Amino acid sequence: MIDIVPIGTVRGGRTEAEDDAWGTIETDIVLDAARVRPESTVGLADYSHVVVVFHMHKVAEVSVETGARHPRERTDWPKSGILAQPARSRPNRIGVTTVELLSVDGLKLRVRGLDAIDGTPVLDIKPYISGFAPRGTIREPNWVKELMARYW
Amino acid sequence: MIDIVPIGTVRGGRTEAEDDAWGTIETDIVLDAARVRPESTVGLADYSHVVVVFHMHKVAEVSVETGARHPRERTDWPKSGILAQPARSRPNRIGVTTVELLSVDGLKLRVRGLDAIDGTPVLDIKPYISGFAPRGTIREPNWVKELMARYW
Repeated sequence: MIDIVPIGTVRGGRTEAEDDAWGTIETDIVLDAARVRPESTVGLADYSHVVVVFHMHKVAEVSVETGARHPRERTDWPKSGILAQPARSRPNRIGVTTVELLSVDGLKLRVRGLDAIDGTPVLDIKPYISGFAPRGTIREPNWVKELMARYW
Repeated sequence: MIDIVPIGTVRGGRTEAEDDAWGTIETDIVLDAARVRPESTVGLADYSHVVVVFHMHKVAEVSVETGARHPRERTDWPKSGILAQPARSRPNRIGVTTVELLSVDGLKLRVRGLDAIDGTPVLDIKPYISGFAPRGTIREPNWVKELMARYW
């Protein structure tokens, strides 16, 4: 068991998770002064994007899938393992999303396109570094391209 | 406080963290049958890459930086906030890396380019989905391009 103490909280945006249309939503990430110092964000504004690691705390633990299911209950999409799909109800309920960084004001970040609801605990913020993009040719199934078509 | 129970462990590869040259290293990720069922990886082989979320357990908690410092103690690089650099000694010690998926055999995955050492607890595996790549133009400071030059 690993104890994780959030470093901040998502403020604003949606109050309930929805499947699609996250792209234009702007939210604040308010960092906790008990966890990080104001200097922790020095230089962050030099990056256009950040990677937000968050805990999808409103997903009930009993709803977590540990096997396979049809993504979004779409039976026309293949039954897929929970680790092979972008579902919320996954073990440990950790979300990782790269978002546009709009502004940095001390311990408050403004971002666009974060698919996390108001009140979501934030576990880490990383700068988006292009050198960490996938190396080599990318391959993914067609159904996930359909799923993403309206996501942003 | 959030309790996270790892879903698996990194096996093989380096036994100590190093700064550079992770690109050719192959490791296994052995998932824990007490946490996920064999069906959890169904369809994963349809993706070329996976995103591995892991806990950098060998980083001593006392060494975690909560403010700013020079990346890799390079005083020719700007003093940067811990959230504005790709350092291990960050709050919550969570790593997120996209790696090539070489094979899937039930609860055992073989990957290339994972910058985590033997024994590292794995918190989540996500498929790499191109639709989650950053939207818009990417901007990053020059020093981080220098840092990444020998990373893979």
